[in-house]
Amino acid sequence: MALWSGRFTQDVGELTQRFGASLPVDRALYVQDIAGSKAHAAMLAAQGIILPHDNEAIQSGLDDVRASIESGEFAFDVNDEDIHMAVEGALIRSIGDAGARLHTGRSRNDQAVTDTRLFAKARCAALMQANCDLRAALMSQADANKDVLMPGYTHMQHAQPVLFAHHLLAYVAMLERDYGRLKAARTAADASPLGAAALAGTTYPLDRFQTAEALGFSRVIGNSLDAVSDRDFLLDLVYACSVSCLHLSRLCEELVLWSTAEFDFIELSDAFSTGSSIMPQKKNPDFAELIRGKTGRVVGDLVALLMTLKALPLAYNKDLQEDKRAAIDAAKTLEDCCRCAAGMVATMTVKPASMLAQAEKGHLAATDVADYLAKKGMPFRQAHAVVGHLVLLCERRGCGLGDLSLADFQAESDLFDADIADALDLRAIVEARTTYGGTASVRVAEQMDAARARLETDAAACGAGGSCGPAGPYSC
Amino acid sequence: MALWSGRFTQDVGELTQRFGASLPVDRALYVQDIAGSKAHAAMLAAQGIILPHDNEAIQSGLDDVRASIESGEFAFDVNDEDIHMAVEGALIRSIGDAGARLHTGRSRNDQAVTDTRLFAKARCAALMQANCDLRAALMSQADANKDVLMPGYTHMQHAQPVLFAHHLLAYVAMLERDYGRLKAARTAADASPLGAAALAGTTYPLDRFQTAEALGFSRVIGNSLDAVSDRDFLLDLVYACSVSCLHLSRLCEELVLWSTAEFDFIELSDAFSTGSSIMPQKKNPDFAELIRGKTGRVVGDLVALLMTLKALPLAYNKDLQEDKRAAIDAAKTLEDCCRCAAGMVATMTVKPASMLAQAEKGHLAATDVADYLAKKGMPFRQAHAVVGHLVLLCERRGCGLGDLSLADFQAESDLFDADIADALDLRAIVEARTTYGGTASVRVAEQMDAARARLETDAAACGAGGSCGPAGPYSC
Amino acid sequence: MALWSGRFTQDVGELTQRFGASLPVDRALYVQDIAGSKAHAAMLAAQGIILPHDNEAIQSGLDDVRASIESGEFAFDVNDEDIHMAVEGALIRSIGDAGARLHTGRSRNDQAVTDTRLFAKARCAALMQANCDLRAALMSQADANKDVLMPGYTHMQHAQPVLFAHHLLAYVAMLERDYGRLKAARTAADASPLGAAALAGTTYPLDRFQTAEALGFSRVIGNSLDAVSDRDFLLDLVYACSVSCLHLSRLCEELVLWSTAEFDFIELSDAFSTGSSIMPQKKNPDFAELIRGKTGRVVGDLVALLMTLKALPLAYNKDLQEDKRAAIDAAKTLEDCCRCAAGMVATMTVKPASMLAQAEKGHLAATDVADYLAKKGMPFRQAHAVVGHLVLLCERRGCGLGDLSLADFQAESDLFDADIADALDLRAIVEARTTYGGTASVRVAEQMDAARARLETDAAACGAGGSCGPAGPYSC
Amino acid sequence: MALWSGRFTQDVGELTQRFGASLPVDRALYVQDIAGSKAHAAMLAAQGIILPHDNEAIQSGLDDVRASIESGEFAFDVNDEDIHMAVEGALIRSIGDAGARLHTGRSRNDQAVTDTRLFAKARCAALMQANCDLRAALMSQADANKDVLMPGYTHMQHAQPVLFAHHLLAYVAMLERDYGRLKAARTAADASPLGAAALAGTTYPLDRFQTAEALGFSRVIGNSLDAVSDRDFLLDLVYACSVSCLHLSRLCEELVLWSTAEFDFIELSDAFSTGSSIMPQKKNPDFAELIRGKTGRVVGDLVALLMTLKALPLAYNKDLQEDKRAAIDAAKTLEDCCRCAAGMVATMTVKPASMLAQAEKGHLAATDVADYLAKKGMPFRQAHAVVGHLVLLCERRGCGLGDLSLADFQAESDLFDADIADALDLRAIVEARTTYGGTASVRVAEQMDAARARLETDAAACGAGGSCGPAGPYSC
Repeated sequence: MALWSGRFTQDVGELTQRFGASLPVDRALYVQDIAGSKAHAAMLAAQGIILPHDNEAIQSGLDDVRASIESGEFAFDVNDEDIHMAVEGALIRSIGDAGARLHTGRSRNDQAVTDTRLFAKARCAALMQANCDLRAALMSQADANKDVLMPGYTHMQHAQPVLFAHHLLAYVAMLERDYGRLKAARTAADASPLGAAALAGTTYPLDRFQTAEALGFSRVIGNSLDAVSDRDFLLDLVYACSVSCLHLSRLCEELVLWSTAEFDFIELSDAFSTGSSIMPQKKNPDFAELIRGKTGRVVGDLVALLMTLKALPLAYNKDLQEDKRAAIDAAKTLEDCCRCAAGMVATMTVKPASMLAQAEKGHLAATDVADYLAKKGMPFRQAHAVVGHLVLLCERRGCGLGDLSLADFQAESDLFDADIADALDLRAIVEARTTYGGTASVRVAEQMDAARARLETDAAACGAGGSCGPAGPYSC
Repeated sequence: MALWSGRFTQDVGELTQRFGASLPVDRALYVQDIAGSKAHAAMLAAQGIILPHDNEAIQSGLDDVRASIESGEFAFDVNDEDIHMAVEGALIRSIGDAGARLHTGRSRNDQAVTDTRLFAKARCAALMQANCDLRAALMSQADANKDVLMPGYTHMQHAQPVLFAHHLLAYVAMLERDYGRLKAARTAADASPLGAAALAGTTYPLDRFQTAEALGFSRVIGNSLDAVSDRDFLLDLVYACSVSCLHLSRLCEELVLWSTAEFDFIELSDAFSTGSSIMPQKKNPDFAELIRGKTGRVVGDLVALLMTLKALPLAYNKDLQEDKRAAIDAAKTLEDCCRCAAGMVATMTVKPASMLAQAEKGHLAATDVADYLAKKGMPFRQAHAVVGHLVLLCERRGCGLGDLSLADFQAESDLFDADIADALDLRAIVEARTTYGGTASVRVAEQMDAARARLETDAAACGAGGSCGPAGPYSC
Repeated sequence: MALWSGRFTQDVGELTQRFGASLPVDRALYVQDIAGSKAHAAMLAAQGIILPHDNEAIQSGLDDVRASIESGEFAFDVNDEDIHMAVEGALIRSIGDAGARLHTGRSRNDQAVTDTRLFAKARCAALMQANCDLRAALMSQADANKDVLMPGYTHMQHAQPVLFAHHLLAYVAMLERDYGRLKAARTAADASPLGAAALAGTTYPLDRFQTAEALGFSRVIGNSLDAVSDRDFLLDLVYACSVSCLHLSRLCEELVLWSTAEFDFIELSDAFSTGSSIMPQKKNPDFAELIRGKTGRVVGDLVALLMTLKALPLAYNKDLQEDKRAAIDAAKTLEDCCRCAAGMVATMTVKPASMLAQAEKGHLAATDVADYLAKKGMPFRQAHAVVGHLVLLCERRGCGLGDLSLADFQAESDLFDADIADALDLRAIVEARTTYGGTASVRVAEQMDAARARLETDAAACGAGGSCGPAGPYSC
Repeated sequence: MALWSGRFTQDVGELTQRFGASLPVDRALYVQDIAGSKAHAAMLAAQGIILPHDNEAIQSGLDDVRASIESGEFAFDVNDEDIHMAVEGALIRSIGDAGARLHTGRSRNDQAVTDTRLFAKARCAALMQANCDLRAALMSQADANKDVLMPGYTHMQHAQPVLFAHHLLAYVAMLERDYGRLKAARTAADASPLGAAALAGTTYPLDRFQTAEALGFSRVIGNSLDAVSDRDFLLDLVYACSVSCLHLSRLCEELVLWSTAEFDFIELSDAFSTGSSIMPQKKNPDFAELIRGKTGRVVGDLVALLMTLKALPLAYNKDLQEDKRAAIDAAKTLEDCCRCAAGMVATMTVKPASMLAQAEKGHLAATDVADYLAKKGMPFRQAHAVVGHLVLLCERRGCGLGDLSLADFQAESDLFDADIADALDLRAIVEARTTYGGTASVRVAEQMDAARARLETDAAACGAGGSCGPAGPYSC
C-alpha cells in the first residue's frame, strides 16, 4: 500500500498552499479590500478603539500598498493565501504594530464579503453601461432602417411581414428587462456586512453605519450570521448575466442566419468577421458565434454557484471561497459580449432588397386575406380554411397569392371583391397593424420614442461604477 | 434498410399526436384560458368586432365549459393538442358559429402566453403566502426559545456562542429576500401580451388596454414580437424558486444534523418523522431530507428552461411549449417544501440543555480572551497568538479555558487579571456582542420586532392569488 | 404569530403523506418490484429461511397482485407511500402471515434500488432499439439520395461541397456513440444490490448470487453500503440521454433550417408538420422544434440528479427518493424523441435541385483553386492569398469563380492554366476528396457499409429489454 | 443616439482581438500542437507532398519553437489568436517558405481538435493516476484500522454497527467506477481527426493512418464532418470528472462531520487544516470544504459544455472555441481534489474510542433483536413492532437496549430467552453479517483483497499520460 506515500508527501505543502489559496482570483479585488480596510480603520479611530496616529499610519500605509499594486511592483505570493492577507501582511511589514491593530473587531469572514459586495456593485454598474451601449446600437440601426420591411417568422417559417426596426426593438425590450435585473442585483449587493465579525458581532463598540456610509453602502445587514453567509447577491448577479447572455444568444443566432448565403439579410463589417486558414472565400461571423457559445459558460457559472451553496449549514464554510470565480467570470463575459455585440450591430450593413425579395417569396398576406373574409362576416375559422385552399392552389401553380386572378379568389368564396388587392400588398399589411405594440410604422415610432426615453434614464443611472476598477484583464 | 419502416409507421399518428400535445400539462391552466377568452370576447363586442349576442353566447358557453371541467365531466382528449383547442372546440360544439368568432384577432401565440402569465402571477401569490407561513413558524420558535444559547459554527467547528433565536432569524432574513424575488417575478409576469396576435399585431381595432384591465394585468407589452416570444417572467419565477429551495436546503441540512444522536439539538415531531421497514429503533427526518433533495429538481427546472431558450430566433418557436412544465413543477415543489418546512419547524422540540452542553465543550470564549488582551493594548494579531497557546495547553490537559488558573493565563501574558473570568462566561460573551446585528439579546429582540413588522406587511401584500386555481394536484 | 397555525395544522397529515409518498412515480416500477420479491422469496425458501408453502403462497399471491395491477383493478393509495408497501400490503391482506415473512432479510433500501436497477436496464434496452431505428432511418435517406450534392458549411457559411449522404452519416456516427453510452449505462445498472439489506448486510444466510441470477443481473455488488447508496447507474443513464438529445437537437436545428423558405432543402411530410390557428399558409416543423426544445429538459434532469447527490453522507438518505423521477423522464423523453425523429427523417422529401442551386451560389471551389496552386509548388499560405483576391474580384463583379476567364486567373498567378476548369467543377471537387473519411462517393459508400454492419450488430444486441414494461404512458 | 459611438469604436480592434482569441486558454496545448504538426509534416513528406528537406526544416523548426516556449522566451501575443497561429507564425519567421508548406492539406478545424484529443487523453491518464492514489490512501487507512467499529447511518440516524474499513471501502468502490468512466473518456478521445481538413477531407493523398499512429491514436475517425464537429469526448471527460467530484463531495462531507466537536471521529492533520484570523481556538477542515465546494464548479463546466453544443448545425462553428476552457478546468480541479483528498485521508488520525462511544449511544442492536424473534418463527413485521415497543421503553427510561432485564424483554414476547444478550453485542452483530458484501470482518478482508488487486491492475494501466505536459499551473 505504499503506492501513495512515495510520490505524494514531499510536495504536500506546496499543493495545499496552492489549492487553498484564493489569491489568484481575489487579487482582482485589491481596490475593494483596501477601501474596506481604510473605512474600518477610520471608524476604529473615530470610536476610540485605535489611536489617531495608528489610523493615520494605516491610511497612508494602505495607500502605499495600493500604489505598489498598481505600479506592478507588489510581489503577490500564493503563500499569502488571499488578497486580505497579502495586503495586511504588506501593511504590517511597512508600518509595524499599527498595522497589526487594523484587524481589531473584524474577521476575514466579514472582510471578504464586504470586498465582494463592493466588487459586485461595481460590476453591475459596468454591465448596466454596457447594456445601454448595446441598446443604443440596436436603436441606431432601427432608426437608420425605419422603412425596411422583412419577413416575420414563427417556427422559422414566413409568417407576416414586419418592419426590421420592429424586430430590432424586440431585442431592445429584452435588454431593458436585463437592465432591471442588473439593477436589482446591484441593490442586492448594496448592504454592508462589515462589523458582523466572524459570525456573531463583536464586543468592540463598532459603528457599522459609519463604515457602511464611508463605503457607499445604502444599508447595513441586520443579522450577523446572515451577513457572513449570504451570497444571494452573487446569485442575483450571475442570474442576471445568464438571462442577458440568453438574449444575446438569440440575437447572435439571427445575425449568423442573416449572414448566410441563403438569407443574405445583412453583411457584418470586416472588423467583426474572420477568414479561414484553408478556404480563401470565407467570411465568418465568428463573434456572433462566440457570443452565442459563451451563453453556456455563463449558465455554467450559475449552476456552479447554486450547487456550491446547496445544503451549507450556517455560518461561514470554506466552500464559499468558490463564490468569486463564477461571478467574476460571468460579469466579465457578459460585459465583453455586450460590447462586442454592440460593435457588430452598429457596423453591420443591412440589405433591404434581399429582405424584401424573401418576404415576397412566401404567402405572408394569407392572414390578411382571411381577415378580409372575416371582416365581411365569415367566421374566422372558415375564412382560415378558404385561404388554406388558395395557398394550396398557389403551391400547385408555383406562384404567390398576388398572382391569382379575382376569379380564382371568387371560386373559393363570393365574398371576395376587387379590393382584395389591397389585402395583398405587403407594406399595406404592415401599416394596417396599428394595434398597440403592432408593426405599423406609427406604432414603431412610438416604441422608439419610449425606448429612447428609457435609455436616457437608464444611462444616467448607471454611472459611478467604474471607480472600483476592472474585472481583471485577460492575460496571455 | 427495412428495419425502421416495419414497426414504426403504423402508429406514427398516435405517437406524433401524443408527442406534440401539451394538453397533459396545460390543462392545469383551464381557469386562465377561459378567463382570457371571456375578456377577449367582451372586448371584441365592445369594439364592435363581434355582435353583442355572439358575445353573450360565448360568455355563457365558456362558463359552461368551466363548469363541465370542474365537475369532472369534461372529456379531455389528447387529439385536441392543447387546452386552447380543447376549450374552443367544446365551445363551438356547444354554441356553433358564435364560438367560431371567438378567435378573431387572436392567435394561439398570444393566447398561450396570456394564460401562462396569469398562471405565473397566481403561483407567485401562493408562494408568497407559503413564504410568509414559514417565516412565521421560524419566528414562533425563535420567540419561544429567546434565551436558548447554542454553539455558533464556522467550518462546522465551534466558533462563538450565539442565541438560537439569532440563528433562526438568519433564515428569516434569507426568506425575506426570497419574498422579494417572488414579488419581482410576479411583477415580471404582470403584463398583457393579448392582442399581439401571431407576432405582428392585427388589423382588427382591438383594445389591448381593455383586456389587460379585465384580466388584472397592470401593463400592456409594447412590442408584439416580444409579447409572443418573451419567457423571462418564467425564468424569474423558477430562479426565485431555486434560490428559495437553496435556502430551505440549508435549513434542512441543519435540521438533519441537529436530529443526529451526535448533535441532539432538536427532536422532530412524529408527524414529521418516519420509521424504517427493517430497523425498529429508527426515527428518520425524512421530510427534511426530501426538501434538501428537491433543491436539485428545482435547479434542474431552471437549467431546463434556460437551455431551451438558448439561441431561439424570433418570434414564436415550438420549443417554447416546454416552458410550462418546468415552471409548474418548480412552483409546486417550492410551495410544498415551504409548507412542509413550516410544519417541521413549528412542531419540533428544542433541547436547550443539549445545546449548552455542546457549547461548553469547545473553546468558544477564545475570541473574547483575545479581545480582552487587545483592549488592554496588545495588537490583536499578538493576542490571537497568546490565546492560541492557551488553547493548546487546554488540549494537552484535556480541559477548557475556564479550567485554567489565573497563573496559567499570566504565564502567557501579564496583561491578564482576575477579571478574565468575565471573558470566559458564555452568556456574558453573547450579551457583550451588542454591535448592530449582533447576537446580544437586546439586538435579537430588535431584529425580531423588525422581522415581525416586515412579515405583517408582506403577508398583507400576497393575497388574491388563490382565485386562479391550484398548480394541479399530485395524481396517483 | 398565529399566522401559521390557523390554516396549516388541520391538513398536515395529508400534506406530509402526499409530500413523502413516491408512489405516483415508482408505481411505474411494479413489474420490477414484484419480480424482485418473487426472486427474494424463492431464495429464502431455497436457503431454508422460510418454509416452502410460505414461498408458494407468496409466489402466487404476487402473481395475483400483478394481475390486479395490470387489469386496472388494483387500488393505488397514496397512504401506502411507495410501490413496495403497496404491493406488500396487498400481499399480506391476501395471504396473511406468509406475506409478512417476505421482507425477512431485506430492507426497502436494497429493495428500492434493485427495482430501479432492473428498470434502468429495461429502459436502456428500449433506448438502444430506438437509437437503432433512427440510425436506420438516416441511412435509408442517405441510401436513397446517394448522389445528392449540397453545400457543406462551417460557421454556417458555404465552405466546400459535400454529399448529402456524407452529411447524414455524420449523424449516424453521433448516434453510434450514443448507443455505446446507453450500453455502458446498462452495464452500470446490471449489478445486484439485493441482500445488502438496510446498509450492512444481514445475519440471515441469504444467497445473493441466486437472486442476482434469477433477476438477470450479471454481477453482485460487493460492498453493502455502496449497494444501497450508489446511484451512478442513473447518472450514467441520464447522461447518455442528455448527449443523445444534444445530437438530436443538432439534427433538428438543421431540419428546421432546411425547411425555411430561404434554404428550402427539404419538405417535411404532413404527418410531421402542423399548421397555424391564424395564418392559413403555415406548415410548421413543430416536431423538430419540440425535440430541440426537449434537450433542455433532459439536461435539466441530469443537473437535478447531480445536485441531489452532492455531499450526501453514507449510506441511504431520503434525498435519494428523487432519483427515479429524473431518470424516468429523461429516458421517456429520449425514446419519444428518437422515434419522432426517425419518422420525420424517413418521411421527409429531399430537394436536390435546391441544394445544388445554393451550392453554386457561393465560392465553394475556392479551396480547390488554392490547392491547385499549392500542388504546382506555391506555398499554401500564398495560394490562399491569391484565391482571396480572385474571390474579391468575383464579389465586385457579382459573379462566381466559374465565370472568370483564364486571363483573370493568370493575372493573379502565372501558375494557372486551362486545366483550372476541372478545379471549379463541384462534383469533381467532391469526388477528389478521397482521403479516408472524405466526401468522395467511394468513401461514402465505404462508410455506409461499415455503418450498416454496425447497425446489424447493435440491433441484435438490444433485444429483451421490452419484457420489463413501459416507462409509463403520458396521461391526460 | 451617439451614446454608443463616442466611446467604443476607438478600441474595437483591441476588444475583438482579445475577445476572439483563444490563446490564453489553448497555449496550454502547445505540446500537442507541435506534436501534431510534426506528425503531419512527416506524413506529407512520406507521401511526397512536400520535399524531404522542407520536412527536416519543419521538424527542427518546431523543436526550436517548443524549446523556446519551455524556456519562457517565447513571446505569446494575443494577436496570434490561437496556439496554432502562434506556433506556425514563429515557425515561418524562423524557417521561411518551408514553414508555409506545413499547413498543406490541413485546416485549423482538424488541427485544433487533434490537439484537444491528445490533451484529453493525457489528462485522463493523469486523472486515472490521481484516482489510484486516492484509492490507495483510503485502503491504507482501512488496513490500518481493520478492527475499528463505528455506527452505520441511514438518514444520518444510527442504524447498525459497521466496520470503519467497510465504510471506507464504499468510497473505494465509487472511485473504481470513476476510474472506469475516465478510461472510457480516454477511449473516446483516442481517435484521430487529422486529415479531415476543414470538413470534407482533402484532395491531397494524405495517409491518415500514418499520422494517427505517429500520435498514438488507436483509430481514425471515419466521417470528416464528424471529425471536425464532434466534442463528445470532452463531454465524456467532464462528465467523468463531475461524477468523481460528486463522490469526493460525499467523502468530504463526512470528513467535515467527523471533525466536528459533536462527532469527533477523526482529527485531520495540521497540514490539512487552517486556523482563523479572529478565533484562536479554530482548526478548520478547509480542504475538505473546498473540495466539496468545487463540485459545483465542475458540474458547472459540464452544463457549460452541454449548453454550448446545443443545436449547433454541422460542421464547425466558432462556439466550439469554448470547449477547452471547461474541460481544462474540470480536469485540473479534479486532479487537485484527488491529490488533496488523498493527503487528507492518509494523514488523518482515526479515533476508535469516540466512534465506539457513539455506537453505544443509539439502539444499533434493534434490528438484530427483531431478527432474533423472526428466527424463532415470528413474522418479521411483528418482530419489528415488538422491538419498537422495547426501544420506546428505553427512551422513557433513558437507557439502552442492553440495560433492559430479561423480564423486560419477556414482557413483550415470550420468545425471548437468556441468549438475547448475544444479539445485543455490537461486535457480534458486525461479525454476524457474513452475507456477501456484508460488514463482517471476513467479508471486509475479502473486499480489501479484491480492491487491492483491482488497484494494481488499474495503476499499471494509466501510465504514459504524463508525457504530454501539465494542465497549466495556477498563476498568481
